Amino acid sequence: MIKKVLIANRGEIAVRIIRACKEMGIETVAIYSEADKEALHVQIADEAYCVGPTLSKDSYLNYTNIMSLATLTQTDAIHPGYGFLSENAEFAEMCEECNITFIGPSSYAIQKMGTKDVARETMKEAGVPVVPGSAGIIKDEEEGLKVAEEIGYPVIIKATAGGGGKGIRVARDEEDLKKGIRMTQQEAETAFGNPGVYIEKFIEDFRHVEIQVLADNHGNAVHLGERDCTIQRRLQKLIEETPSPAISEEMRAKMGEAAVKAALAVNYSGAGTVEFIYDKEDDSFYFMEMNTRIQVEHPVTEMVTGVDLIKEMLWIANNETLSFKQEDIKFEGWSIECRINAENPHKNFMPSAGRIDMYLPPGGLGVRVDSAAYPGYMIPPYYDSMVAKLITYGRDRDEAIRRMKRALDEFVVEGVHTTIPFHQRMMEHEVFVGGDFNTKFLEKYTIMKDES
Amino acid sequence: MIKKVLIANRGEIAVRIIRACKEMGIETVAIYSEADKEALHVQIADEAYCVGPTLSKDSYLNYTNIMSLATLTQTDAIHPGYGFLSENAEFAEMCEECNITFIGPSSYAIQKMGTKDVARETMKEAGVPVVPGSAGIIKDEEEGLKVAEEIGYPVIIKATAGGGGKGIRVARDEEDLKKGIRMTQQEAETAFGNPGVYIEKFIEDFRHVEIQVLADNHGNAVHLGERDCTIQRRLQKLIEETPSPAISEEMRAKMGEAAVKAALAVNYSGAGTVEFIYDKEDDSFYFMEMNTRIQVEHPVTEMVTGVDLIKEMLWIANNETLSFKQEDIKFEGWSIECRINAENPHKNFMPSAGRIDMYLPPGGLGVRVDSAAYPGYMIPPYYDSMVAKLITYGRDRDEAIRRMKRALDEFVVEGVHTTIPFHQRMMEHEVFVGGDFNTKFLEKYTIMKDES
Repeated sequence: MIKKVLIANRGEIAVRIIRACKEMGIETVAIYSEADKEALHVQIADEAYCVGPTLSKDSYLNYTNIMSLATLTQTDAIHPGYGFLSENAEFAEMCEECNITFIGPSSYAIQKMGTKDVARETMKEAGVPVVPGSAGIIKDEEEGLKVAEEIGYPVIIKATAGGGGKGIRVARDEEDLKKGIRMTQQEAETAFGNPGVYIEKFIEDFRHVEIQVLADNHGNAVHLGERDCTIQRRLQKLIEETPSPAISEEMRAKMGEAAVKAALAVNYSGAGTVEFIYDKEDDSFYFMEMNTRIQVEHPVTEMVTGVDLIKEMLWIANNETLSFKQEDIKFEGWSIECRINAENPHKNFMPSAGRIDMYLPPGGLGVRVDSAAYPGYMIPPYYDSMVAKLITYGRDRDEAIRRMKRALDEFVVEGVHTTIPFHQRMMEHEVFVGGDFNTKFLEKYTIMKDES
Repeated sequence: MIKKVLIANRGEIAVRIIRACKEMGIETVAIYSEADKEALHVQIADEAYCVGPTLSKDSYLNYTNIMSLATLTQTDAIHPGYGFLSENAEFAEMCEECNITFIGPSSYAIQKMGTKDVARETMKEAGVPVVPGSAGIIKDEEEGLKVAEEIGYPVIIKATAGGGGKGIRVARDEEDLKKGIRMTQQEAETAFGNPGVYIEKFIEDFRHVEIQVLADNHGNAVHLGERDCTIQRRLQKLIEETPSPAISEEMRAKMGEAAVKAALAVNYSGAGTVEFIYDKEDDSFYFMEMNTRIQVEHPVTEMVTGVDLIKEMLWIANNETLSFKQEDIKFEGWSIECRINAENPHKNFMPSAGRIDMYLPPGGLGVRVDSAAYPGYMIPPYYDSMVAKLITYGRDRDEAIRRMKRALDEFVVEGVHTTIPFHQRMMEHEVFVGGDFNTKFLEKYTIMKDES
């Protein structure tokens, strides 16, 4: 039985995990970098230790220090949150070797899904639809050109070790492709130590629809419906919702089934998300990737299913059997999440670190705030810029949007710029409210004019 | 169609009502006393006007000013919240005369239920069980003594115009009763301008179980289950929950039916609460009173039914038909509310007005905060001492309690004393957690020792 968990993360997700542990009577160990000693997760954990200097690579990515601390504090399990070490197969393996439970899937599953061309092939074999493209990593430029000719331009070049919007390049013709392959290989070599790239048909306008799955160590897997994360800026999600306004009941069932297949194909365990490209034109969908960790936008799923995903992760890590079957999962109402970042939306979303002088989150019925901010908190410029996740729940999309509007209006964050004004305009934007849009939304419509 | 609502209240309930209006696209007019010009409800309303000096009688109870303002601002409707003018039949009548919608029942229903001996007789006629006692107001001491002899001591003497714990006195023998009748009559004359008292059998140890009802102007009425408000200190509710850990499914149905009967008996319209004494010994229940307004503890009902009670009140006031029938109301999970007051629980709950220096409400899954507090807010000593209502929701009672514990631990209020430490101990108290207790709980167990 897990009695003590080390949270190898910071910010709101560390707070989220500590909250779940507290409610389960599990002791918590927080870690922090030198820049984070005043952070909220440090204040609310049972124990907290500095694991290194400011830079992530020296602290939140510092395996050795984190593993030593876990051993010293007699920690039973490590929750990696998202980002940092969460999809690092080597770290998961190290935990396995040290007999500390890694709260997530096996290093095998992480490895399979983390190597994108391998994931693609695995999915193909499992019968999950994938975008037409090369059979694994291309050997050379020549193979790339051949594949592109077969599937037709535009194509997308992807580093097999890439992620988070890095190691991706679009090519619209032969010239583009030749240059793109070279550049992506070089970039991938430098960033990930692996130059392998593969090629896929580039679908320009689509809905980003992802399926939440939960799987236990006893071969049971269920899905918890979809999240629509189509509103993105430079591949960063800004607004997420469930259900998706774009898909039908039948499509939800099909995608859910495919996601469960994907999870079972790699003996998945824990919470994971299978991301799909949904093409409205011909009502088809394709596997994009599987994120083998909890995701930023997990709360919207919790709001409509009533399932506490972090607690489920802890129970699964504890070797328990899933307490529900697919038919027990009921979806009720609508939920939207706005990511409130410390960025200036009037200045091209320039990061705006600094001291939060005044802070008052909104409250009341149907409003949830997941945040590590507080009045007087100094946002360090070294990590991500998230201030809070604002989540609303309503009977239907209209109520969830109206509630989001009033919650955004109430939200007080002074001292730094935030993306609140951006979200306020989004909630009033005719096309967003209409629900019919694709990933090009923010290229097509000007939401905020830059200040001169 | 209601387009503009004046909120004749202050504090968290004014904020709650403004939030619902905003989500419905209804304009809001706030009122405030001179002491409240910095209050949150003033800041978030579309318009706000000072209606008088600090004392409630000069501002929040100042009919004339409030009605003039409503007319001047072209307000369609007035929401009275709870307390203040909410159960004032005269004010409701004045609204009716001025053609402004009073968001609540008719002055007739308020009158019927507000006059306690009349309410008692009305309920008896409608077939709702009432506590054995006198047939209406007692003529004199002699009649009182006769009734007491019939029903047996102890008895309770109640002023017909009383409420909120005032004008109530227990008598354990003849001497007590004679003195009690005299004193209660005098007190009632002074406080309410009506010396009438009646007598009931005094049930010492009971569960306070109340039923939420909703009724429209077209003869439809439903109940939304019960709230258990057994944890009280000097007749003030401190913790409320739903469902009640004390009653069975059958009892819930019986009480619900009785509450709907009660509402229909006075042509009720809007949201109301029928309070019952539930006697565990013989699984019986008796009508206590009906509160013809929204109640402080309404959020727990919203959490388990998914019904937004304030919006329902607005729709009903708009003459719409209830959008659901009794069988559509589903109860899911468990919800608890702790009233966080600015009082020192170590010093006999002495009020602790002053400046809130630091304020950070808890967040995350299953946590709702209804509050008008903010960092720097100066709590005026003139009104109630509520800082926030902290509401948690869980799959079951155990999860709701554990979540409440962690939320209380996170809640930061600095600068004033609060009842947070009291609630923290309650959530760990074996008897509270066990669920088997009655209204004597706080007399029987010492939760906080007074500091010497």
